[in-house]
Amino acid sequence: MLRRDYPAENCSIARALEVLGERWTLLILRDALFRGMTRYSEFEASLKMASNVLSGRLARLVEEGLFEVDTDGSYRPTAKARDVVPALIALTEWGDTWAAPDGPPIVYRTPTGTGVHVEIRSDHGRLLTPGTTIAPEPGPGAKRRGAGTRGRSS
Amino acid sequence: MLRRDYPAENCSIARALEVLGERWTLLILRDALFRGMTRYSEFEASLKMASNVLSGRLARLVEEGLFEVDTDGSYRPTAKARDVVPALIALTEWGDTWAAPDGPPIVYRTPTGTGVHVEIRSDHGRLLTPGTTIAPEPGPGAKRRGAGTRGRSS
Repeated sequence: MLRRDYPAENCSIARALEVLGERWTLLILRDALFRGMTRYSEFEASLKMASNVLSGRLARLVEEGLFEVDTDGSYRPTAKARDVVPALIALTEWGDTWAAPDGPPIVYRTPTGTGVHVEIRSDHGRLLTPGTTIAPEPGPGAKRRGAGTRGRSS
Repeated sequence: MLRRDYPAENCSIARALEVLGERWTLLILRDALFRGMTRYSEFEASLKMASNVLSGRLARLVEEGLFEVDTDGSYRPTAKARDVVPALIALTEWGDTWAAPDGPPIVYRTPTGTGVHVEIRSDHGRLLTPGTTIAPEPGPGAKRRGAGTRGRSS
């Protein structure tokens, strides 16, 4: 049930953006996942977005299985939503580094008060620095075995 | 020079989305960072997006300092662009898990051929599982010391 706002590329970034890339969607997830908001009125007060847009985004998040609607009408994030946390933390770090001239406005902490950060590691456990070359290769879900990664699947 | 497409919230996720959240922008960065594309014609062939939109996105990325234009007209990603890699890897993992029914279409590898993945760790080095509660607190750049994190800064 993916919409094709982005090209029908066989790429998980493009597919993720089809669901998560709509304006406001990641901020709704931020409020749900980090601030514990579950109610329409809470999202509305936090984000001050047009109510028809908020309703549409929440409906899409339910349709895509990121929220479940509780019997009391509250929106409960699912595992599919919780799996967005690393992307949100990674975006936070980018914003902290490049768009926070006064320092991080918000810091995320574990229940014991320790800060958190994102790391890219090799599957052997090696920490990768920003300069490490990371190259794409066709994976098990590639449409044509051995097709070059620059080629489109058409 | 941040545009205010999102509410003027003092949150690094919101600020990151002001720059990175425009449709196509993360796919342009994907092609630049993982596929080594530098030329307008390469992005055009890869993304098949309207040329006026592509021109606008590239100009914005230059204006925001994510690309530098070389003397030969090619677009060279800066450190500010390379710092987007963790967010792209995190989005890839979400797409691989939740939007790739045939398995990951593309896998990212280090120069030695090892796969890569994103981890969220506490600043003491502890690996955090998806279920770990991560809560926001005002950071050094918060506008009001001690302000609640649910409150807007207005």
